[in-house]
Parts: sequence; structure tokens; C-alpha cells
Amino acid sequence: MTRINTHTNILNHLKKVISLSESEEQEFTSILEEIKVSKKNFIIKPGDLVNSEYYVVSGCLEAYYLDESGDKHIIQFAVEDWWISDFEAFFNKLPAKLYVETIEDSILLGINRDALEVLYSRIPQFERFFRIKTTSAFVSLRTRILSTLQKSGKERYLEFCEAYPKIEQRVPNYHIANYLGLKPESLSRIRKEVI
Amino acid sequence: MTRINTHTNILNHLKKVISLSESEEQEFTSILEEIKVSKKNFIIKPGDLVNSEYYVVSGCLEAYYLDESGDKHIIQFAVEDWWISDFEAFFNKLPAKLYVETIEDSILLGINRDALEVLYSRIPQFERFFRIKTTSAFVSLRTRILSTLQKSGKERYLEFCEAYPKIEQRVPNYHIANYLGLKPESLSRIRKEVI
Repeated sequence: MTRINTHTNILNHLKKVISLSESEEQEFTSILEEIKVSKKNFIIKPGDLVNSEYYVVSGCLEAYYLDESGDKHIIQFAVEDWWISDFEAFFNKLPAKLYVETIEDSILLGINRDALEVLYSRIPQFERFFRIKTTSAFVSLRTRILSTLQKSGKERYLEFCEAYPKIEQRVPNYHIANYLGLKPESLSRIRKEVI
Repeated sequence: MTRINTHTNILNHLKKVISLSESEEQEFTSILEEIKVSKKNFIIKPGDLVNSEYYVVSGCLEAYYLDESGDKHIIQFAVEDWWISDFEAFFNKLPAKLYVETIEDSILLGINRDALEVLYSRIPQFERFFRIKTTSAFVSLRTRILSTLQKSGKERYLEFCEAYPKIEQRVPNYHIANYLGLKPESLSRIRKEVI
């Protein structure tokens, strides 16, 4: 039963951008690997070889870097309909530097890099899909960098709530503070101000 | 004469990733707009509508944000064979937030967004080309963010020299310091250490 639902989600996700025939949809779903992970477990750890990127069917995850002092730096959150991985490791075939960890029980669909390459050559529409998705991710990352330069903590928090409403309600306060580069007490103060 | 050379460069740039027929090459080059700009001039200023992205045939440019205090934050450099624009403004059809300025006399090839959309639909190979280019830009940006978290100024400078050897020799010291998030005097000290 779950299998049908998970595929429905990702197919609807694709259909927002590209049109596929039924056989192309089947070819795509045949390469997906369904993974169920309970909360507070790792999908990726530093040093891992990363052969897949992951579409989130349900749940919530974070990708972060632990520096030498043990300080955590959250690079990305992901909820339903998002993609997550250590993308640097995935695309450049390098050992992972990030942790990717579940914040909630999660169901993911993994796509293997080699299977994806075959898919690109067989169904060029996927080139379009991932071009548009990657462009969007690239632009979001640039926007985030600019926001840290130009906007106040309050503005950045409001921007975050607008961009990621599903995340704001599900992720502990100190995780969001970390992502936004704020102290937890500053974020608490901001949250009281904007309610 | 210049026209032939500029097209040769960008076609070789494409051929590293995709294969095109002669008529496809002609269709592509027909949408390129050649722009010659002397040094210290602006391609883009904040508030501009950004309808093109630019391939660098020759020269050197930088994209930067000026904050409210007038402090400059360099987001990107570009030399031969690189692409530059205010990508957030270009892809999301928003007014520019960045300056894009020439550091040297430059020759650019502009691609208009609408013409590019037509090109995608007519020659799907370009979906592949820009998917791979954008993925690479996205991963580089993530790598840069991680480097600021995990690496010393010296390590970041050496990484910069390795990644952008052409830029390191052509851009003033204080521009590189700005890009790396270092004080100019720290960069001078690092440079003396590594010679």
C-alpha cells in the first residue's frame, strides 16, 4: 500500500515540471529505492560514499556539518517533496563531509547515481526536470547567502517561515536558530515579537 | 574576426559536455549577443531587470552586493569560459540585487532568457548542458560555504588558487580577501607564507 502512495507523491512532484508517458513513469519508479528510517537515525555520515540522492515522501531531515570544535552547522532541512543528500559528495564522487539525519520518522525514495545517468540518456525529459530543480536549489542558496548579508535576524526568520512553513512548525527552536545563524535566545525573542 | 573567435570559444565550451550538429551550433550562436565592455563598467546594477546570463569570452568580472553600510561582499568572479549574471534575478525574474562589474576589458556573449527557453524546447541537449553546469555551480557554492566553516584562511586561499588559478593572478589582493572573508592584511601575510 505504502509503495503506491510514495510513487504517487513523487510522480505528482515530477508532473509539476514535465510530462511523462505511463511507460516512462514505470521506468522511473522502477529505479527508486524505498527507505524507511525512524527518527534520529543517519542516512549519511562523514566518510561515506554517497551513491544516492533522496526524495522525501514523509518525515523531516537535516544535513549538517560538525566542525573540529564539535559545533554543528545546519546546511539544509528537508520535508515532504524535497530532495536531500550530501550533494557535493554525490555529484563529485567524494567521501561525505556532512551528516544527513532524520528529525522525524521518514520515508525516502533513493535514486542511485548510475541509474539516474541511464535515465537521462533514455528519457531526456529528466534532464529538464533536474535542470530546473537544481537551478532552483542554486538560486535558493545564493538568496540565503545574500540574506545573511543584507537582512536582520527578524527578517531572515520571517523569510524562513514563508519559504518553509512546514519546517518551522516541526523543527526544534535551536535547529532553526542554527540554520539562520542566530543564538537560540535571539530567535526566542524574535518569535515573541512576531506572534 | 572577433565574432568567429568568440563563437569558437563557446562552442568548444559546449563540446566538452554535449555533441551538436552544425545546424544546431548555428541555431545556438544565432541567439548570442556579443558585448564588449571596457574595464570598471557595469553589466548589471541593483534594480535592473536581468534578461540575460553572460558567457565570458575574454576579460574578468565580479558580482557583488553592497550592504547598507556601503560594505562590498563579492559573490562571484568570472574569467574566460565562465558564466556570470545576477542569477537570482535572472531565473526568478526579480529586480537585480547585485552589481556585475568588469575588472578588465571584457568580451561577453549574452543569452536572453526567452531565447534560451526556445532553445531548450528545440534542442534538448541544452537541457543537459545547463543541468550539468548548474549542478557544478550549486556544488561549488555549497563547497564554498563548507570551506568557510571548516578551513583556515590559509587553506581557503590555497583552495582558491587551485580552483581559480586564472583569477588569482588578475584580481587585486583586497578583492580576493573580500571573497574569502579575510582582512586584506591577513591575506598578505598568508601569501608571504605560501610563496
